[in-house]
Amino acid sequence: MTSTLDVLELERSAQELLFQEARTANTFSDEPVSDEQLRAIYDLVKWAPTSMNIQPLRITFVRSDEARARLLPHMAEGNRAKTGAAPVVAILSADSDFHEHLPKTFPHVPNAKDRFPELSQREQMARFNGLLQVGYFILGVRAAGFAAGPMTGFDAAGVRQEFFADGTQEPLVVVNIGKPGPDAWFPRLPRLDFDEAVEVI
Amino acid sequence: MTSTLDVLELERSAQELLFQEARTANTFSDEPVSDEQLRAIYDLVKWAPTSMNIQPLRITFVRSDEARARLLPHMAEGNRAKTGAAPVVAILSADSDFHEHLPKTFPHVPNAKDRFPELSQREQMARFNGLLQVGYFILGVRAAGFAAGPMTGFDAAGVRQEFFADGTQEPLVVVNIGKPGPDAWFPRLPRLDFDEAVEVI
Repeated sequence: MTSTLDVLELERSAQELLFQEARTANTFSDEPVSDEQLRAIYDLVKWAPTSMNIQPLRITFVRSDEARARLLPHMAEGNRAKTGAAPVVAILSADSDFHEHLPKTFPHVPNAKDRFPELSQREQMARFNGLLQVGYFILGVRAAGFAAGPMTGFDAAGVRQEFFADGTQEPLVVVNIGKPGPDAWFPRLPRLDFDEAVEVI
Repeated sequence: MTSTLDVLELERSAQELLFQEARTANTFSDEPVSDEQLRAIYDLVKWAPTSMNIQPLRITFVRSDEARARLLPHMAEGNRAKTGAAPVVAILSADSDFHEHLPKTFPHVPNAKDRFPELSQREQMARFNGLLQVGYFILGVRAAGFAAGPMTGFDAAGVRQEFFADGTQEPLVVVNIGKPGPDAWFPRLPRLDFDEAVEVI
């Protein structure tokens, strides 16, 4: 960690909670995650921006044994044990019917909804903005004091069929949520240096 | 704002800096953004997770008059004035050659690089994970005390040709960065309620 981070306005303890000390957990303790905490995570991250305020992210928090039993067979084998052990698992999806909410979410343009007649355009825009919101969500889970375990290793078609068969939601990422258990971490992996990822012109 | 946010571990001042009080700015003051601050933003957000630690996001900070003159013609007309006025503008792109860095970033699997022979697979994975990183980056700009103005209204093919013609980088989002100027904000737009976007099963 370099000392340059002192120029940030965000306090060091918050930086560490969200970024430097936060890690992707692979085991979870029994400490529960309350419905109030899930609600607070949403009420925090909902404020982060999306194009035209479309907010396509949908969150399905899987908590009950019954719902979890429907999810587990669709997870990659290497993800099944931890997804079975996390107190709560979030299926994050993008809703291509986001335009139905535009009269509420983009009220200064009364006919905004009519700008999106094409499903393929809506799917693309939902996926694009939904992924930004997945980024916000992962940091929101950490803001609540929990470890997030985001996974793309699952059968998206299977999850879609099982949970969203009637609807317009495309699963993007599944996230385990809880307090870390024993041996929760793999070794910290290296990040690209500034000069490998950034240029100033 | 409901009181439920008190159950979060992140302090209220940090919540407000990143989420509730942060807004998409449409005008900017003359207050500069230093190279040290740009470096600190990267050194913060680089820690947030990507699949297989691939870190496909590339950041081109546009600061000079010359670089800005190359960018402005590709911005949508409605975005041109603010992109011309922001102290720094970031072009965020996804690098489909991320696999070249895997010997460094995923060292425990020595041949990880060879898992990605197909360009189309790499482009898809770069875009998916790059968009998560765009979400992290927007919050990182706010962590530095600046307003972020993310935009998708630009000619992506034109930006790609102008800035990344020799390379493998796909532009995703352009972000204005600076302290807000006069009349920087549109009215705050409504967010979806918990029950409109979330279910617990």
